[in-house]
Amino acid sequence: MSTWKGRDVLNILDFSRGDLEELFELAKKYKEDLKNHRVNRILEGYVIALAFFEPSTRTRMSFETAAKRLGAATVGFTSGEGTSIEKGETLADTIQMLDSYADLIVIRSKFEGSAILASEVAVHPVINGGDGKQHHPTQAMLDLFTVTELFGSPDGLTYAVVGDLRYGRAASSFLLGLTRFNPEKVILVSPKQLRARPEVLMTLMDSGIRYHESDLETALEEADVVYVTRIQKERFPDPAEYEKVKGSYRITRGLLEAKAKNGLKILHPLPRVDEISHDVDNTEWQAYFIQAANGIPVRMALLSLVLKGDEL
Amino acid sequence: MSTWKGRDVLNILDFSRGDLEELFELAKKYKEDLKNHRVNRILEGYVIALAFFEPSTRTRMSFETAAKRLGAATVGFTSGEGTSIEKGETLADTIQMLDSYADLIVIRSKFEGSAILASEVAVHPVINGGDGKQHHPTQAMLDLFTVTELFGSPDGLTYAVVGDLRYGRAASSFLLGLTRFNPEKVILVSPKQLRARPEVLMTLMDSGIRYHESDLETALEEADVVYVTRIQKERFPDPAEYEKVKGSYRITRGLLEAKAKNGLKILHPLPRVDEISHDVDNTEWQAYFIQAANGIPVRMALLSLVLKGDEL
Amino acid sequence: MSTWKGRDVLNILDFSRGDLEELFELAKKYKEDLKNHRVNRILEGYVIALAFFEPSTRTRMSFETAAKRLGAATVGFTSGEGTSIEKGETLADTIQMLDSYADLIVIRSKFEGSAILASEVAVHPVINGGDGKQHHPTQAMLDLFTVTELFGSPDGLTYAVVGDLRYGRAASSFLLGLTRFNPEKVILVSPKQLRARPEVLMTLMDSGIRYHESDLETALEEADVVYVTRIQKERFPDPAEYEKVKGSYRITRGLLEAKAKNGLKILHPLPRVDEISHDVDNTEWQAYFIQAANGIPVRMALLSLVLKGDEL
Repeated sequence: MSTWKGRDVLNILDFSRGDLEELFELAKKYKEDLKNHRVNRILEGYVIALAFFEPSTRTRMSFETAAKRLGAATVGFTSGEGTSIEKGETLADTIQMLDSYADLIVIRSKFEGSAILASEVAVHPVINGGDGKQHHPTQAMLDLFTVTELFGSPDGLTYAVVGDLRYGRAASSFLLGLTRFNPEKVILVSPKQLRARPEVLMTLMDSGIRYHESDLETALEEADVVYVTRIQKERFPDPAEYEKVKGSYRITRGLLEAKAKNGLKILHPLPRVDEISHDVDNTEWQAYFIQAANGIPVRMALLSLVLKGDEL
Repeated sequence: MSTWKGRDVLNILDFSRGDLEELFELAKKYKEDLKNHRVNRILEGYVIALAFFEPSTRTRMSFETAAKRLGAATVGFTSGEGTSIEKGETLADTIQMLDSYADLIVIRSKFEGSAILASEVAVHPVINGGDGKQHHPTQAMLDLFTVTELFGSPDGLTYAVVGDLRYGRAASSFLLGLTRFNPEKVILVSPKQLRARPEVLMTLMDSGIRYHESDLETALEEADVVYVTRIQKERFPDPAEYEKVKGSYRITRGLLEAKAKNGLKILHPLPRVDEISHDVDNTEWQAYFIQAANGIPVRMALLSLVLKGDEL
Repeated sequence: MSTWKGRDVLNILDFSRGDLEELFELAKKYKEDLKNHRVNRILEGYVIALAFFEPSTRTRMSFETAAKRLGAATVGFTSGEGTSIEKGETLADTIQMLDSYADLIVIRSKFEGSAILASEVAVHPVINGGDGKQHHPTQAMLDLFTVTELFGSPDGLTYAVVGDLRYGRAASSFLLGLTRFNPEKVILVSPKQLRARPEVLMTLMDSGIRYHESDLETALEEADVVYVTRIQKERFPDPAEYEKVKGSYRITRGLLEAKAKNGLKILHPLPRVDEISHDVDNTEWQAYFIQAANGIPVRMALLSLVLKGDEL
């Protein structure tokens, strides 16, 4: 029996392995439907609010595409600019309004806890499209779906998570999501200023997942899945420090040819800047474009499970 | 026989009591449909242009939601930025274009008379989504619908209208809209810099509606409906003056407990800043969230009457 | 047999006379359907990405309207602001993403060659909604459709193209498009700083089209079709130079009454500033509003031919 209907999607930790497997099953079916141009209007008549207080290209457009592929309509805004918040309205009042217009709200904000607040105000389900530094649960869902698709299951694999593990919410949510499965181990690769947050490490530890810090070359030699994220210049008080650091986190075709474990796949939540060189794009290691494309079927599955649950 | 089909909606005074009652009847039916998740695609195939030269969250999104709930598509823009107007195009030319694309145009602008100009250029119906200081007819429609829903009819009630009565178009349109009914009387509560405009008062007088100015406490003791609007700091040349004034227009739970007439309901076009304290939200006095939610069924009714009239 | 299905639309020169005639035939049918309020949902289930890196009112909204009139959904952005490009993502990566979300991509950019690059990355068809200084093929299509509608065919007519022939992509694409037909001759009217680009003139010459430069009065006396474009102040290093020049390119009712050849029609891609005086709007010479309205049926035809080809 599905437990999805009417649920808020705030934190990847709110979902069990069984929940995620149910989601992946449906996403797989939708992916097949898309490939075969089968039109599905199961959400016709539904209105989904996209409340993007922080601009986003990929997350916003993939939710919008997912909704429309299922016949739902969307309303919303693409940045906080010009919204009532600028006139001094509270987030709660804005959400109250959206809740009375739409059947489901997707919220994206740079403020930690915005999605939780929204879910407390709203009668309808709220999906966290990314808030603050830690939570981006739907990104973790599509990441884990991609791993499942590539390897059959997330179990038994060695993961390296590379880049900004401190402020990058995609990396944190991915690490949290791994606790729903049985990874072999996790390798953390980051500059010392951007190490994984203690609460994330604690969660790994509590779940009995082995992890250790290492460098990029070791990671490439040992990992099956290398999850790369952007290192933002702004995180470094001293630009010279950034310049010194960034070369050590750059994956090139040459480096992969020299080091990569057999069957290794590279994920990246995108956008990338230069942490993965473009000469990797047409190799067997590349899985980030597959991952990006999976945003559609996974979010289609998510929207339909939350809105319809067992009625599907 | 309905007179709605093909009409422009520019000024609440263009509509008779009968017109408004027909609108409210249909809005009531749509509200019931929404509650029961009945999907209605009566406007499928129609395209509605949303020409929001001035940003708006609530009005824009509620028109968009209303259109999509009935199966219509929308096209448009959410601010004047990036439009041809910035390249020096006249409003008339922009409207001419929209008129050739869409079946109906909703326009919002800070310039008085934009909607009238648009209606002169366009062959298709034009709805004023707020222009200048005086006219926001669809807001008045949903306000009066809400009063009708709460009290059975706008007749025989005492109204207090509080806040910026000079520049606030929602307050002005609400006052003008009251002339289509038989209120017991109207109490006007505002700082002296923001008193109601003479042409609005003249219209009340011509309709035989009794009104007088008073303070907030008296208003709460006597009114059935208290219509509150935001007082904007920018209206005061001297910020100190604003600080002095604002406390006298703030409605709190304590104040209501001490003063409110039995059965009193508070309306507000929203967004609010701090003129209604948040501790009022969960009381019987609060009607502003109900009012905001009514934006959907009222605008659904409006769009379908203007586009389809008697064919409904 | 149609050759349209799956094709990129990058440059008007990629299309033969037969291709354009097939397009115009279908556009004519759709225009008739629109006039008779016949709803056509032939593209239901399709998602079209509108990637407008450069703001646009007319082109964007007419593609959006065209898509929605046929039941397709659209996703996208209306300016480069807030997109991943601002975070340092390459255009290729953004297009890769859109390609995995949508069934067709319309791209608008100020950078020459963006559309070609996009078409090389994308599996799905790419339509150039205007890039750089030379190419705006869908504008040329609707311009030539309008000429066909007004005169039966673009053949045998004398054309004057007036204004910024150097940087204006609508004018260049129109000139290139004329090479698919047999014009009597072409008159070029522009300030010397804004003369037609050599590669465009070369293409006219190679196609055996006679052209010469002249002034506005001669053009009005000889041309059947006068295609006017905006002269942008920014093109002139010296504002005084601009002021001196602009009067010589202004078409007024008085000038037309004095000079216009019998049956002359004025086109303009719009927006106009003051190169055509508003007193021309209600005369027989005006064809620019008809032309703008034709953006819908022509783009409907284009989208359905590219997505469905012979299956229509």
